[in-house]
Amino acid sequence: MNTFNVTFLPAKTKIQVRDGLTIMEAAVEAGIELEGPCGGKGTCGKCRVKLLGEDNEEPVLACRTTVSRDLVVEIPQLEVSLHRKSELTQRELDFQLNPGIRKVFLKLEKPSLEDQSPDATRLGNALGLDRLNMPMDVLRCLHRSLREDNFKVTASVANGEILKVDAGDTSGQLFGLAVDIGTTTVVAALVNLLTGETLATASATNAQNIFGADVIARIEHVMNDARGLEHLNKRVVGVINRLLTKLAQAAEISPEEIMQVAVVGNTTMSHLFLGLDPTYLASSPFIPITAHLVRAEAQDLGLEIFAHAPVYMLPNIAGYVGADTVGVILSTGVHKQEGMRLAVDIGTNGEIVLAASGKLWTCSTAAGPAFEGAQIQFGMRAATGAIEKVKIDQDVHLSIIGKAPAKGICGSGLMDIVSELVKAGIVDGSGRMLNREQAEHLPETLRSRLDRNDAYGTHFILAYEPGQEAVVITQKDVRELQLAKAAVYAGIQILLKEAGLSVDDLDQVLLAGAFGSYIDKESALALGLLPPVTPDKIVSVGNAAGAGAKFALLSADLRQEAEELARKVIHVELSTRQDFQEFFMDALGF
Amino acid sequence: MNTFNVTFLPAKTKIQVRDGLTIMEAAVEAGIELEGPCGGKGTCGKCRVKLLGEDNEEPVLACRTTVSRDLVVEIPQLEVSLHRKSELTQRELDFQLNPGIRKVFLKLEKPSLEDQSPDATRLGNALGLDRLNMPMDVLRCLHRSLREDNFKVTASVANGEILKVDAGDTSGQLFGLAVDIGTTTVVAALVNLLTGETLATASATNAQNIFGADVIARIEHVMNDARGLEHLNKRVVGVINRLLTKLAQAAEISPEEIMQVAVVGNTTMSHLFLGLDPTYLASSPFIPITAHLVRAEAQDLGLEIFAHAPVYMLPNIAGYVGADTVGVILSTGVHKQEGMRLAVDIGTNGEIVLAASGKLWTCSTAAGPAFEGAQIQFGMRAATGAIEKVKIDQDVHLSIIGKAPAKGICGSGLMDIVSELVKAGIVDGSGRMLNREQAEHLPETLRSRLDRNDAYGTHFILAYEPGQEAVVITQKDVRELQLAKAAVYAGIQILLKEAGLSVDDLDQVLLAGAFGSYIDKESALALGLLPPVTPDKIVSVGNAAGAGAKFALLSADLRQEAEELARKVIHVELSTRQDFQEFFMDALGF
Repeated sequence: MNTFNVTFLPAKTKIQVRDGLTIMEAAVEAGIELEGPCGGKGTCGKCRVKLLGEDNEEPVLACRTTVSRDLVVEIPQLEVSLHRKSELTQRELDFQLNPGIRKVFLKLEKPSLEDQSPDATRLGNALGLDRLNMPMDVLRCLHRSLREDNFKVTASVANGEILKVDAGDTSGQLFGLAVDIGTTTVVAALVNLLTGETLATASATNAQNIFGADVIARIEHVMNDARGLEHLNKRVVGVINRLLTKLAQAAEISPEEIMQVAVVGNTTMSHLFLGLDPTYLASSPFIPITAHLVRAEAQDLGLEIFAHAPVYMLPNIAGYVGADTVGVILSTGVHKQEGMRLAVDIGTNGEIVLAASGKLWTCSTAAGPAFEGAQIQFGMRAATGAIEKVKIDQDVHLSIIGKAPAKGICGSGLMDIVSELVKAGIVDGSGRMLNREQAEHLPETLRSRLDRNDAYGTHFILAYEPGQEAVVITQKDVRELQLAKAAVYAGIQILLKEAGLSVDDLDQVLLAGAFGSYIDKESALALGLLPPVTPDKIVSVGNAAGAGAKFALLSADLRQEAEELARKVIHVELSTRQDFQEFFMDALGF
Repeated sequence: MNTFNVTFLPAKTKIQVRDGLTIMEAAVEAGIELEGPCGGKGTCGKCRVKLLGEDNEEPVLACRTTVSRDLVVEIPQLEVSLHRKSELTQRELDFQLNPGIRKVFLKLEKPSLEDQSPDATRLGNALGLDRLNMPMDVLRCLHRSLREDNFKVTASVANGEILKVDAGDTSGQLFGLAVDIGTTTVVAALVNLLTGETLATASATNAQNIFGADVIARIEHVMNDARGLEHLNKRVVGVINRLLTKLAQAAEISPEEIMQVAVVGNTTMSHLFLGLDPTYLASSPFIPITAHLVRAEAQDLGLEIFAHAPVYMLPNIAGYVGADTVGVILSTGVHKQEGMRLAVDIGTNGEIVLAASGKLWTCSTAAGPAFEGAQIQFGMRAATGAIEKVKIDQDVHLSIIGKAPAKGICGSGLMDIVSELVKAGIVDGSGRMLNREQAEHLPETLRSRLDRNDAYGTHFILAYEPGQEAVVITQKDVRELQLAKAAVYAGIQILLKEAGLSVDDLDQVLLAGAFGSYIDKESALALGLLPPVTPDKIVSVGNAAGAGAKFALLSADLRQEAEELARKVIHVELSTRQDFQEFFMDALGF
C-alpha cells in the first residue's frame, strides 16, 4: 500500500494518506474544513480546490479526485456572510438585562504591615464575596494583575467565581456571543452584554454537511466511523470559531474579550457541538445523553475566546425537539401569553409548539431538508441567485434574490413554485407532474418547459439561459415537499388533538426559521402546510431560535426559565402513533 | 557555544544543554528529580549518578560534573520510605466521617418509548440532584458508562457535582491522600475514605532541596530564575506523585482510585505546590497570594490520580504561618478546648500557637533549619545512623537510630548534645565552645575530642571509626541552635504577652513535628527552648500538621472549621516588634 503526503494551504497542514483516498477524505482526516453539501456526489461543485505545482492549475473537485501522488492543495477560504443588521436584532428586549457575568472595577488598598491580607482576600473582600473561587491560572497570575496598575483592577465574576482579573479599568467592555447551530447554516451574533445591543451577525454553512444534509446522515457517520464524532464536532466548532473571528474583526475587539456564549441547535447539533455521541438519538427509544442546560467553559469546547467564558447550551426537550425549539418558545414568549398559539419552526427539521394558556405541547416532524433545499435538485440557501417567488400564468415569472441570473431555488421559492404548478394544473392533486404528452391543454410556453432525462427524471424548467445550466424542479422535488408539508400538517393536527383544541381555537400561527421570513402565507395555506386559518393570524417571527440564544445570553433569569420550560413542555412522540399516519396520508395531496 | 545532548535514564528524557552546565543543572532543566540537599556544594554526595557507555562506569556527582560531550546519565531512583504504621494513624478520630465525596450505587430503569428521559436526567433523578453538574468528559462518556453494565452504575459525587460514573458497583472502594509538605520532608498517607483507616504512609525528601534548605532560599530561586517557580512546583508535585505511586502499589490499588486529597504545608510550600509565586512572601509586608482554603482539581495541579479528584490545600494564616499550623490546631483541637495551651511545631521553621479558651494567637519564628538538620554540619533526618540521644559524663554515650554506625545528628539529638555539652562545661553560658587549651580541667576522653580545622572550625568529635569520616558538632552548629531556641522562646513570650498570660497559666505545652516525638523534655527545658513548665505538662503530639491533613481529608465539616479558624487566629508579626528583640537577646544564653 502506497502512502502520499498531502499539504493543505493556506494552513500548511500536512497529512500522510494511503492510496485510494479522495482529497476530501484526506481533508477530513486532517481536520480541514471544506464545503460539500452534496455529500461527495460531485454535483454541488462546492469542494473545488486548486492543485499547486501542476502544469495545469485548473481547479478539481476534492470529493472526486483521488490522491495518487504527493499533492499541495489550496483550499478556498470558506464563505462567511457578515450582516450589521440581522433578524436577531429585530426583536425588542422586554426583559431585564442580567447576563449573569459582571465586571467590577476596584481600587484596592495597598498591602502594609498593618494590613497583611493576602491578595485573594483583598480582592474577595472588595467584591463582597464569601467564598473565593477562581480558576488556578487566574490565582496564579493574581499577584501580577493586582500590582500591574497599582492595585486598580477589574474583576469579571460569574456564577460566584472570579473568572478574570484585569489590571486597570476594563469594565466598559463586555461582550458575548449568541449562536444558532442549524443543520445547514450556523448563525452567530456578537452582542454587547452591557447594553444588549447586537454589534454584528454572521452566518456560514455548517461544514458538517460533507457528511450528509440531515441529522440522520450525520449520526450515521458517527456510528460508521470511529473518528466520526470527532470529525463532526471539530467541524461545527471550527465554523463557530471562523464566525466569531470575523465578528470580532468587524467590531474591532479581540476574540479574548468575548466572555460568555449561549447556543441553540437541535438535539443532534447540540450533542455534536458538545462532543456527545448522538448514536442513541437515531433509533427508538431516541435517548439524548443530556437535555439539561449545559454550562461548560469555552476552553473545554474548543472555542477560541476567553478560556473560562461560560458557554450555555440551552436545554433540549427530546431527541428531536432541541434547544432551538426552546429558543423559539423563549423569544416568542408563547409560554407566558394568554390564548392559543402555534409556533412552527421549519428548518432542516420541522418543530411545532402549541401553547394554550401556559401549557405547552411539542413534536418534531421529518420536515426534511426540502425547506432548506439540500435534497432538492437545485436547492440552495436564500442567497444571491435563489428563486424566492414565482408566478405562473401563461408563462413563468421569477423573483430572484439579488436580481442575479437564477442559480437555484430556496425553501420559500420551492413552496411558491409547487403551489403555482398545482394552480396551473402542471402538478395534479396527488402530486404527480404531467409529462409533455399529458400537457397538451397547456400553453406552449409552459408545455415546452416539461421535460424528462436520466439525470433529473420528469422535470419542469424554471430558468434557462444559453450556455448556462437550466434551473429545474423535478417530480422528485415535488414529492419531497409533499412529504414534508404532510408531516408538518399532521404534526399540527396531533398537537391540537392532544390539547383538545381545533384549528378555529388558534389565535395566532407563528412562522419561525429564516425561512419563515420569506414565506408567502397564501402559498403555505394553499399547499396545506399550515392549517386553514385566516392569513392575518399568520405572523413571521424570523430566526426565533437564534433570538432565543440571544435572550439566554443576556439574562440568567431567562436561562433558568428555559431550563424550567424545557422540563414542562409535553413532548408528543409521533413515531409510535397510528393517528399520525392517518393525518399524514390525508394531508399528502394538494 | 557548543551544545550537547544529555539523556537521562530510566525515564529516557532527552535535553540539549549548552557548554558549561553541570549535570545537576541539566537535570533541573529537564524536570528530572535528583536529590542534593547540600545545594550543589559537593558535600552531601546525594546526587551521585552513573555515566553510561564510559570505559569507567564509576559514579560521579551531578552537581560537580560539567557536561562537555553527549552523555547518557543513569539517575538512581529517589528513596521513598514506606511505613505501614505512622504517626498519622496514632490519633483517634473523634469526629464524624464525612469526606464530602461519596459513591452511590444505582440500578437505573432502562429507557423505553414510555420513558425517554435522557441519560443525564435518568442519573440525576436517581441521585436526587436538582442541578446536574458534571465535567464534560464524564458527560461525553455517560452513554457508555450507563450501558456497559446494563444501567447499573456507581456515581461519585462531591460538591454537588458528579465527578465519575463507573459501570457496575464500585461503591466499596474510595481512597484519599493526606499530604504534609515539609520544607525538608514530604509525608503522604493513603486513607480509606469509607472507614477512615490509614492504609500506608510514605515519606521522601522534598526534592526542592537542591535549591536551598530553607524557604527563603527557595523563594530566591523563584526571584532569580525565570523558570524557578516551575522548577520548584514540578519538584514537589513530582515527589508527591512518587509517594502516591508507592502507596498505591503497597495497598494494591490503582492511583486512579484516589479520589480526594488534602494537603498541608507552610505558606511558601503551599504556594509552590499550587504554582503560586511566593515572591511577595519574602519581603515586608509579607503578602501571600491566597490564604483561603483552595480547592482545585488533581489534573490542574499535575497530580497523577483521578483527574477530577478534589484537592484541598488547607488555608494559610499569614506569610509565615501556614496550612501546617492550621493542621496542628485542627488535629490537636486546641481551638475547641477549655484552658490555656501552647502548641509548638518545630520543623525547618518554628510556628507557635497559643490557645486560651477558644481564642487563638500565633506567630512564626525563624527556628531555622537547625531542628531539621539542614544547616548543621552533620545534620540529617531522624533516619538510620542518626544520633538521637547523648549522655556525657567522663565520656560520650550515643543512642543511634537503627543501632548503626553514626552518620549524623538529627534534630532531637542536636538538642541533647548541646544540653549535655553545656552541663559538662564544654560549651559555656554564652554558647562559646572551649578550645583544647581552655579545656585542661576536663577528662582527657573529652578534651581529646575538642579540635579545630579549616573545614569545621572549632568542633567536638562525637563519633569516630577508623576509615570513616568522624561525626562532629561545631561551634557554628551550637550558634545555629542558640539562635533557633532563642527565637522560639521569644516567640512564646510574645504570644503570652499578647494574651495577657504568664507561663504559670499554661495547662499544657504540645510539641508537634516529627521532631516533637523524639525530643527529650528535660533537654528542651534545660536549653530554654520551652518556658519553665513542669515536664508533665509537656506532651508530644507527633506530626500534628500531617494529622490535620488527614482530618481535613475525612471531614468536610473540619475543612469548613479550618477555613473559619484560619481567619479567626490572631497573627502576631514579630519582625516589627522591639520587645521581640529584647526577649530574643535575653534568651540567647544557656
